[in-house]
Amino acid sequence: MGKATALQQLAIGIDIGGTGTKFGIVDRNGNILFSSEISSRNHEEVEGFIDELYDNLHAMIERAGGTGRIKGIGVGAPNGNYYTGTVEYAPNLPWRGIIPLAKMMEAKFRLPVVLTNDANAAAIGEMMYGAAQGMKDFIMITLGTGVGSGIVANGHLIYGHDGFAGELGHTIIIPNGRLHDGTGKRGSLESYASATGVRLTALEMLQNNTEPSLLRNIPTDQIDSKKVFEAAVEGDQLARNIFEFTGQILGLALANFVMFSSPEAIILFGGLTKAGDLILKPTRENMEANVIQVFQNKVKILVSHLKEADAAILGASALAWEIQD
Amino acid sequence: MGKATALQQLAIGIDIGGTGTKFGIVDRNGNILFSSEISSRNHEEVEGFIDELYDNLHAMIERAGGTGRIKGIGVGAPNGNYYTGTVEYAPNLPWRGIIPLAKMMEAKFRLPVVLTNDANAAAIGEMMYGAAQGMKDFIMITLGTGVGSGIVANGHLIYGHDGFAGELGHTIIIPNGRLHDGTGKRGSLESYASATGVRLTALEMLQNNTEPSLLRNIPTDQIDSKKVFEAAVEGDQLARNIFEFTGQILGLALANFVMFSSPEAIILFGGLTKAGDLILKPTRENMEANVIQVFQNKVKILVSHLKEADAAILGASALAWEIQD
Repeated sequence: MGKATALQQLAIGIDIGGTGTKFGIVDRNGNILFSSEISSRNHEEVEGFIDELYDNLHAMIERAGGTGRIKGIGVGAPNGNYYTGTVEYAPNLPWRGIIPLAKMMEAKFRLPVVLTNDANAAAIGEMMYGAAQGMKDFIMITLGTGVGSGIVANGHLIYGHDGFAGELGHTIIIPNGRLHDGTGKRGSLESYASATGVRLTALEMLQNNTEPSLLRNIPTDQIDSKKVFEAAVEGDQLARNIFEFTGQILGLALANFVMFSSPEAIILFGGLTKAGDLILKPTRENMEANVIQVFQNKVKILVSHLKEADAAILGASALAWEIQD
Repeated sequence: MGKATALQQLAIGIDIGGTGTKFGIVDRNGNILFSSEISSRNHEEVEGFIDELYDNLHAMIERAGGTGRIKGIGVGAPNGNYYTGTVEYAPNLPWRGIIPLAKMMEAKFRLPVVLTNDANAAAIGEMMYGAAQGMKDFIMITLGTGVGSGIVANGHLIYGHDGFAGELGHTIIIPNGRLHDGTGKRGSLESYASATGVRLTALEMLQNNTEPSLLRNIPTDQIDSKKVFEAAVEGDQLARNIFEFTGQILGLALANFVMFSSPEAIILFGGLTKAGDLILKPTRENMEANVIQVFQNKVKILVSHLKEADAAILGASALAWEIQD
């Protein structure tokens, strides 16, 4: 037992997104003591990115009482692999190939670094500080530009044999359905139940029928899930149908996930959840309609109550608490 | 350490099926020392069934050296719940409602009893004695009259929050697809990739086109997956198309399962696997075609090499080794 136990230990959480990287210093109770953000796109080489991150965090660490108080660093990153500490072929980040990010950061920060994908980090954050507190079996689904997921069973994240488990956004819900530009696959959950998917559904519905809609006043290239939401709130029927359709697909997908791991709850997070019952009601109904009897009226669909900016940092920092001394 | 450690410990495995109940005494190496079978349908009351089972096993236990050598009893049963030790609303068993089977058997046998569903028991059997030895992440799929499954992640079976996880046969693969008489749902894996499903596909294909086929010589009510297999082996194209179609659906389903838990392997077991590459080739191809890049050419599809009669007993007995002293 060293001196560090005298003061409460702290953890660093870093969430690397396609646009920005959020980071902060967090205590065991989930209070974010310091936080900031830099662009993820300032450096073509990952070394430059790590240097900028270090410069920002170094000052923060000093203010928090120095490195001795920091248990470790948790990093959430797209295509992050828990087992290898690498970020592999992340289509939305500027660095190509396989990046040994955890190792590189350990060398720079001289602190233990644990890395996983962003949705897994979010799931751990919900388990420690959010809607999944006390749960041992739940599924986290992030509905943003894409669809991410983290699956907890028996109290542990499912990483799979290679560290890549939990790609529920890419499961095929409608065989031979909508093409996903990024993967080349057809009919995946992400191709429908993401912000991108809602926009595509809107364009299809506007083209395939002549129903009047507030959305027809908006130039096509400006139609996005936010505009669809605003129109729906104003009572626009076509906009409501877009969310109804999206919820039907999401509900069908959730039914399959329930029959896989029988979670206590499914926690939804991200931009699309702002549509509230416009999307949640058809989601719930279609989930219940597609599960067999033994699962009916058992599984809660919850919306994360963590603030979006905080959740990313909290989730990543939560990884650090699991580091073995 | 009591006297029992002087002799090698043994476990009892009991597999309760819709027709017969197989049971045996097994050592730690998976050798079945004694085994037998009774009908599952002789008794309208479960008490009578347990009495008959006890009478049969009692003699066996004496021959094996007495109760002192037995660590416990593992039971695999349809709709068996690991947490509660109950069999709940099993449509294929003669006893209605919720049966506290583990508790009733403990009272009768005066030995610890662990119970789970039959496919979960099969998964544990494969992990201890079969194709999944040494694996920590795999999925077991049983392709019999129905489709069962057991999912192992991080070295442990996924039971879910209520003990009912792993109902992959009921996941919806073709939305609004074929009706499943038992569940009332449409398009589930089981409605296609089971012996029952293969028969229905055969009837549909025979009706929907005029292609000549050996199957047209068989009375409709006698067409089953075995007859389809025999015709396919003789080169019958329509029979081959039936397995091709079945493999396509199974492969699509496996792709989704892979993207959920990223297993090292998927172990297939049961009658349909006898069709070999007739079904395995399209299954593999369609699985690979539907997973995203990070999973491609990584996941083995293996056929269980345990004998069907042994596997049921081995799997159930394996449960008993996990009983805490």
